[in-house]
Amino acid sequence: KDVARLLIKCPDQPGIVSAVSTFLMNYGANIIESSQYSANPEGGNFFIRMEFSCPDLHTRRSDIEQSFQEISTKFNMDYEFKYVSDIKKTAIFVSKELHCLMELLWEWQNGDLIMDIGCIISNSENAEQLAKSLNIPFYYIPANKDIRMQVEEKQMRILKEHDIELIILARYMQILTPNFVSHYPNQIINIHHSFLPAFIGARPYERAYERGVKLIGATSHYVTNDLDEGPIIEQGVERVSHHDKVDDLKRIGRNIERSVLARGVKWHLQDRVIVDGNKTIVF
Amino acid sequence: KDVARLLIKCPDQPGIVSAVSTFLMNYGANIIESSQYSANPEGGNFFIRMEFSCPDLHTRRSDIEQSFQEISTKFNMDYEFKYVSDIKKTAIFVSKELHCLMELLWEWQNGDLIMDIGCIISNSENAEQLAKSLNIPFYYIPANKDIRMQVEEKQMRILKEHDIELIILARYMQILTPNFVSHYPNQIINIHHSFLPAFIGARPYERAYERGVKLIGATSHYVTNDLDEGPIIEQGVERVSHHDKVDDLKRIGRNIERSVLARGVKWHLQDRVIVDGNKTIVF
Amino acid sequence: KDVARLLIKCPDQPGIVSAVSTFLMNYGANIIESSQYSANPEGGNFFIRMEFSCPDLHTRRSDIEQSFQEISTKFNMDYEFKYVSDIKKTAIFVSKELHCLMELLWEWQNGDLIMDIGCIISNSENAEQLAKSLNIPFYYIPANKDIRMQVEEKQMRILKEHDIELIILARYMQILTPNFVSHYPNQIINIHHSFLPAFIGARPYERAYERGVKLIGATSHYVTNDLDEGPIIEQGVERVSHHDKVDDLKRIGRNIERSVLARGVKWHLQDRVIVDGNKTIVF
Amino acid sequence: KDVARLLIKCPDQPGIVSAVSTFLMNYGANIIESSQYSANPEGGNFFIRMEFSCPDLHTRRSDIEQSFQEISTKFNMDYEFKYVSDIKKTAIFVSKELHCLMELLWEWQNGDLIMDIGCIISNSENAEQLAKSLNIPFYYIPANKDIRMQVEEKQMRILKEHDIELIILARYMQILTPNFVSHYPNQIINIHHSFLPAFIGARPYERAYERGVKLIGATSHYVTNDLDEGPIIEQGVERVSHHDKVDDLKRIGRNIERSVLARGVKWHLQDRVIVDGNKTIVF
Repeated sequence: KDVARLLIKCPDQPGIVSAVSTFLMNYGANIIESSQYSANPEGGNFFIRMEFSCPDLHTRRSDIEQSFQEISTKFNMDYEFKYVSDIKKTAIFVSKELHCLMELLWEWQNGDLIMDIGCIISNSENAEQLAKSLNIPFYYIPANKDIRMQVEEKQMRILKEHDIELIILARYMQILTPNFVSHYPNQIINIHHSFLPAFIGARPYERAYERGVKLIGATSHYVTNDLDEGPIIEQGVERVSHHDKVDDLKRIGRNIERSVLARGVKWHLQDRVIVDGNKTIVF
Repeated sequence: KDVARLLIKCPDQPGIVSAVSTFLMNYGANIIESSQYSANPEGGNFFIRMEFSCPDLHTRRSDIEQSFQEISTKFNMDYEFKYVSDIKKTAIFVSKELHCLMELLWEWQNGDLIMDIGCIISNSENAEQLAKSLNIPFYYIPANKDIRMQVEEKQMRILKEHDIELIILARYMQILTPNFVSHYPNQIINIHHSFLPAFIGARPYERAYERGVKLIGATSHYVTNDLDEGPIIEQGVERVSHHDKVDDLKRIGRNIERSVLARGVKWHLQDRVIVDGNKTIVF
Repeated sequence: KDVARLLIKCPDQPGIVSAVSTFLMNYGANIIESSQYSANPEGGNFFIRMEFSCPDLHTRRSDIEQSFQEISTKFNMDYEFKYVSDIKKTAIFVSKELHCLMELLWEWQNGDLIMDIGCIISNSENAEQLAKSLNIPFYYIPANKDIRMQVEEKQMRILKEHDIELIILARYMQILTPNFVSHYPNQIINIHHSFLPAFIGARPYERAYERGVKLIGATSHYVTNDLDEGPIIEQGVERVSHHDKVDDLKRIGRNIERSVLARGVKWHLQDRVIVDGNKTIVF
Repeated sequence: KDVARLLIKCPDQPGIVSAVSTFLMNYGANIIESSQYSANPEGGNFFIRMEFSCPDLHTRRSDIEQSFQEISTKFNMDYEFKYVSDIKKTAIFVSKELHCLMELLWEWQNGDLIMDIGCIISNSENAEQLAKSLNIPFYYIPANKDIRMQVEEKQMRILKEHDIELIILARYMQILTPNFVSHYPNQIINIHHSFLPAFIGARPYERAYERGVKLIGATSHYVTNDLDEGPIIEQGVERVSHHDKVDDLKRIGRNIERSVLARGVKWHLQDRVIVDGNKTIVF
């Protein structure tokens, strides 16, 4: 389809929308959806996401992008053109628990998550059969603390082979090194099984149980080098009670995790998420 | 404050955003917030709400509005300029139950609902003391089916005296005649104590109880001549169980009603609601 | 496991809990969970569900049940003993859309739904491969209005062969005849894709779209001869907006449907649901 | 009314329900509501709350309580009889922000919170007029870190004069000393303006904003000497977005706070909350 999304971040000032929309109009583009956000109308940053259709977009891409430089320079913009026809290549990392992987595969099959799954990488063999039944390349790479470097080398080689643009950690229970993370800035989405910033780190359900909370949650976020401290994309919660033991929390939590991860991934794939410092703007 | 909102509805076509934003830029206006909606990018209607600040807006209003006619004609627009400094004059109608009225007064005192409450009209004396304690004119007008015409005549006289632009039915338990409603198109907001279109009409909690529903709700909507059939602005629900008797449903329902009405009114006061046929677009 | 559930309905009066709990104690039983409900402490019905563990339960079942008759007669009880070790045999009916079926199979594989799936019956071949991959007998029975009788005859023959105790309509898009329904009182659970009693009947998402509601829902209920009027077990809703077209409502709705059906089925399997007239008590 | 609630905690073993219910039956009592919880059926604690009506309860109280000692000794019970006719005497502490106080007063006037408000104590004069309009004694006691001891002495003198059994901190922004807290074990309910254990301590909304969370919450809990670490009674959340500034979070948060505090207080007043270690069981 001849549909693209233009994402812009720049210092706020009058005239931005006018300049961009006039630029698009001159190419015969029709703006389908537009969302904007002023961090602070006086002196802050301005963010906008415009989704537009444009006749013969595929042949005029480079022309459009080149012409846009004048505006972007004038307004001091960070910007990206994203094309709906460029299906994003993703890799899913998973460990033993498959519920998040299954949800992603399901929504992908339904057409709700539009992506090209290049591979599934796991430190467990649990997902192998599932991957194969869908003809998705599966790589079993055993992992532990002591061999982290070698493991990540193998993983990065595979990711490059498959031209991966987005890594989804669908309950992958290994910590990634700063080296690995630095290769994929804002391109790794993790699901953390708590309502961050509560219960950062390991064993969140056990700790939620011990604390006696009345709601449990999950958080999907971009991965940075600070464990569980990256920009939050989406969060969800469900009610629990004193009747719920740790296993019940885990069971209830699985449902939160899978929907919160799926929503986060979906918004990323639709180019709705802009990272601003350690926060996200979700258009 | 020199802030205004421009609400537009017109046939969708390329160039609208460009024309409007360029127009505003030429007045030195800065767009603070903008939301748009294409009912159908090919051949449907286009809706946009732009909130902008503009230096010396109060002295340039008529100039701006007049200049805008050229664009509006070109694109065949229905449009309105709304000024934040024009605080809307409202009347609250209430019967015996005061919870919705109290919520509105509370949020109004908090600064969350920015309006000028011209008067409170009631067919019960319950609210009198409350109104007086806040120096809001209170009119006690007993009402019933048989004297509907006379009652509405009195009410309309009062509404005119106070230049009322928005009538809020905060659990006012009398039906308004088509004549009354026709004087205030999309200017009367009602709270219905059910999740419409379930339980249209009288005694919704009793009927919800009899049906054994597991969630109850409330709906704020504009009033039209079709009872409980007007454009829905907002809805909310809460969980109930077999333990809850009719009185419990009413008690739980009161909390839903007050927040659902307050949100609907707030969005109207912020010029966020556009009525499109029998639906609302809430920007 | 030596765990059972005793479900009782009887006229309310003092002494019921004392009699039942003393009876259980005399068998060395420990009450694990107990929930009760008095429709009206003065003159209404009393309902109780007691889950208890009892040493050597499997060998003492008939002894216990026989001894209980004295109490049940005294208090004029309707009652049932249900044994956790008697895994319920279920049949899943499905049409083209598989999301509800998939959710049920998934939770069943996870151990969250403890049942013995005797067969999957469908008027479409979509589910065949899925059923076979899990070694569940699959019956493809094309259906339409004109051959309803013959279709149901075949279905009932299969249900009998497999000793089915619970039929789950996981988006089965055919209406069942009174004859069929009468064979399975309170043993057929359907998922209706609206928040009942709103949008009874066909095309609920289309009608929700036309009405402009701000929340959509789904309802799991026992099937009776009144279409979509049977006792409601569970309901859920999600927020929607003017941006959501019919297809979006369907997509959002699928997630509500699958979780609302799965919860309803789970509670039934755990013997938590007592039907009282046209309502349910969910313990 | 001749209604009481019996709350029991004891080591789990067969026969407890039988003993208690038979005891009550022998007094002609009818059990209206009963909820129980086994922390661990093998070797853990057992908790039960029974609400019962009993003819002439007011004249037979001491008789019943004395007779119960035999059972309580046999099963090694911690227990309490609570009588619905003994309306609890409460004190509300508040600082500048009145929304939580207003909600409590409102629900109290509605009959949803059944308590006898002995006094309102504040370090601000904001609530004075409101208190006086309802004929509730109001004490203005300026407070700060340096005079904490003297302030608490005054407060405790007032609390004793009014026979206060429950202290509600309705956004009271002073820290209580261990000495004060020790006088009211599990008798002080606080509302913390975050979803604990996230954002313990000061300025939770500011920190939620900085962290970029997508949901904000509030927590009502009993006060212990560990700041914001006491047993949680109830929690709630609402969705927020990047559009919401700190002031928006506070505004949205106010609505969560008031309902979460009101529910926590209500359950306490209905004797539904049992503290077990650092957790609550809410029946």
